[in-house]
Amino acid sequence: MRQTKFFTKTQKEAPADEQAKNAQLLIRAGYIHKEMAGAYQLLPLGLIVIQKIKQIVREEMTVLGTNELLATNLQRKELWERTARWDDKVVDVWFKSELKAGGEVGLAWSHEEPIADMMKNHISSYKDLPTAVYQFQNKLRNELRAKSGIMRGREFIMKDAYSFSATEEQHEAFYEASKVAYSKCFERLGIGDDTYVTFAAGGAFTEFSHEFQTVCESGEDVTYLCKEKGIAINEEVLKKADLEELGVTRDELVATKTAEVGNIFNFGRQKAEEVGLFFKDKECERVPVWMGSYGIGITRLMGVIVEKFADDKGIVWPESVAPYKVHLVGLNLEDDEIRDWVDGIYSALTKRGVSVLFDDRDARPGEKFADSDLIGLPYRIVASRKGKESGAFEVVTRATGEVRSLTEEEVLADFVK
Amino acid sequence: MRQTKFFTKTQKEAPADEQAKNAQLLIRAGYIHKEMAGAYQLLPLGLIVIQKIKQIVREEMTVLGTNELLATNLQRKELWERTARWDDKVVDVWFKSELKAGGEVGLAWSHEEPIADMMKNHISSYKDLPTAVYQFQNKLRNELRAKSGIMRGREFIMKDAYSFSATEEQHEAFYEASKVAYSKCFERLGIGDDTYVTFAAGGAFTEFSHEFQTVCESGEDVTYLCKEKGIAINEEVLKKADLEELGVTRDELVATKTAEVGNIFNFGRQKAEEVGLFFKDKECERVPVWMGSYGIGITRLMGVIVEKFADDKGIVWPESVAPYKVHLVGLNLEDDEIRDWVDGIYSALTKRGVSVLFDDRDARPGEKFADSDLIGLPYRIVASRKGKESGAFEVVTRATGEVRSLTEEEVLADFVK
Repeated sequence: MRQTKFFTKTQKEAPADEQAKNAQLLIRAGYIHKEMAGAYQLLPLGLIVIQKIKQIVREEMTVLGTNELLATNLQRKELWERTARWDDKVVDVWFKSELKAGGEVGLAWSHEEPIADMMKNHISSYKDLPTAVYQFQNKLRNELRAKSGIMRGREFIMKDAYSFSATEEQHEAFYEASKVAYSKCFERLGIGDDTYVTFAAGGAFTEFSHEFQTVCESGEDVTYLCKEKGIAINEEVLKKADLEELGVTRDELVATKTAEVGNIFNFGRQKAEEVGLFFKDKECERVPVWMGSYGIGITRLMGVIVEKFADDKGIVWPESVAPYKVHLVGLNLEDDEIRDWVDGIYSALTKRGVSVLFDDRDARPGEKFADSDLIGLPYRIVASRKGKESGAFEVVTRATGEVRSLTEEEVLADFVK
Repeated sequence: MRQTKFFTKTQKEAPADEQAKNAQLLIRAGYIHKEMAGAYQLLPLGLIVIQKIKQIVREEMTVLGTNELLATNLQRKELWERTARWDDKVVDVWFKSELKAGGEVGLAWSHEEPIADMMKNHISSYKDLPTAVYQFQNKLRNELRAKSGIMRGREFIMKDAYSFSATEEQHEAFYEASKVAYSKCFERLGIGDDTYVTFAAGGAFTEFSHEFQTVCESGEDVTYLCKEKGIAINEEVLKKADLEELGVTRDELVATKTAEVGNIFNFGRQKAEEVGLFFKDKECERVPVWMGSYGIGITRLMGVIVEKFADDKGIVWPESVAPYKVHLVGLNLEDDEIRDWVDGIYSALTKRGVSVLFDDRDARPGEKFADSDLIGLPYRIVASRKGKESGAFEVVTRATGEVRSLTEEEVLADFVK
């Protein structure tokens, strides 16, 4: 993509009221626009990053055998009353509105009730189970404070999945498989080494739920970590749980700032019982379905990745989520001969499937380099008059600062896989 | 995809309160789930159709040179007050809610105000123009009545685009190019022959806006059509406009039921002036930007396509939007030899890139055929014991009912492009 074809510009300053590093950088680099505290427009570069994150998660959810759907933002009051979660005192993040035709509607902060209710049309026998569904959905949560940029939004994209099982064994098997799938996602997103499956408080039927917590200075959570043993425990569990049973002592655990990037939760059979989702088991008994829920914060992940890897010059994307792999910075483009030469490497790379953002703007080199650092693509290829004379491109790795001088042939050999 | 891997089941009956043919069929076939009047969950098959429609529109928007973004559902009251459109008496489809932190928020029924406001960060000079952006966004509209299934939703997916130009010439050029792009979309979606660019009432600066109206028995609009001349006029224009100027007489126009699938609207420079989106022109004067808006109803299109092509047995998808091209109906699968043979053609087709839904369920032939008609994929391939014995598959074209008997080799030659 030629940069002159994007409408976005980098900005010297983020809005004065923006306190979070992730949002400051993403706004300045032109990835997002702040609509209000906790709600951000995804501009073209930001939308590409989100689509890359979604695609990784989608692939792992497909491996898990789950079906993608998309539920509505508008939700029925009556459904949430059945599970006693309509009341603002019980769920304190509801946005609610009034139908012109009369009556209240809720706006989606979560989906287990509407999706379990929908499932009544599709589950009647043990033969229909186990099954699981997921969606990428735009959640709305009426947070009192929203100061962490895209790490805690009033509006954000979440991957939420729900599993439906006939037996505890099926249910446990899916729960464990989803842990594996989640670890795979975070690994592919470049934060695998710093993301821990964390014991969190369970519900009525289960001692623990599990959070996926990523070590991150600006995270809103504190996790008690034993890196050696790979054991992580949240604050609530630390107070209540039998550490010995978890195989760790208090001394081994270090309080660490983390951001929650995923969670998996066991509903047992209570949710289905409340919603009225029953099936006939092998003995022809009408029993409630075992349910679990499985969340990954898609927009939050973009924020966490920015926070973790950014340096004082700007964003540093892992290759798997970078909007483009290469930032081709063209200098001296007013010279037609140079422009043709740079156009040549641009089309040579793109034709071979390398994703390239080509800075073809009429701007000073210093401005181009600063913008390139801010935007944070994995590799910068500088093409200038000096380079053309020596037949070489300067290739800079954004994360390490490593600089190489490569011929066109070497560039193609290096970047075309 | 093996049908046993989908959780959805066909249903004998749509909900009693569902009056629209499109929603009745889509619910019964398992494409959508009715959450409430005017709001439907997209189940796996429905989501694939929507993604196919989006992809066609996305490709044509890319040809137009527009950038994809995604704005928020939450909107600032203050922005819409500036253009005098916050008041429910002016815009009667607002959903509004209260922030816990204090103050009202609006929920997106349209986006020209927030996107024009965002553009202030990216447009300052005539050199930044022309430019245009688009999104696929989940609109919420508080309709008093919602009786047309997914053809008029309280919640629906819309492609909305906005153009920004420095001069009237640039503006007109984009407006005309978008007409061409829209016609291309509707052609690819299989409704080109029945979709008319229709003169509709303009705004303050323009005599006409343009709607794209598709002939459809259950459409909510009436369009006055002269098919011979390809001229279409809506009711409002019929009353006011000089027909002679449009090159048609009243006698040539036939009142026809239609559904609006797209519209393009010229804001002139007023919208930008109200929002405060100015730029410096070549003479260094600070002037407002020319704006236009361009909508396509994505979920509505799914409904219109169902209404137009369905027959008494079920849905009939045009190939371009069908969730799968082929419905492979396997019979006598309890026989391992037959199952291996059917598995063979399934993997031969899918390996070669043909999209196949494989009915591998344990169900009676009559049920499989009825479901296959209801689901409405373009081609059905029946694989049965009888077929295996004669070495042939029965291939049925859903739209025409044409039946052919083809060998595996012929099937592959016919379906693999």
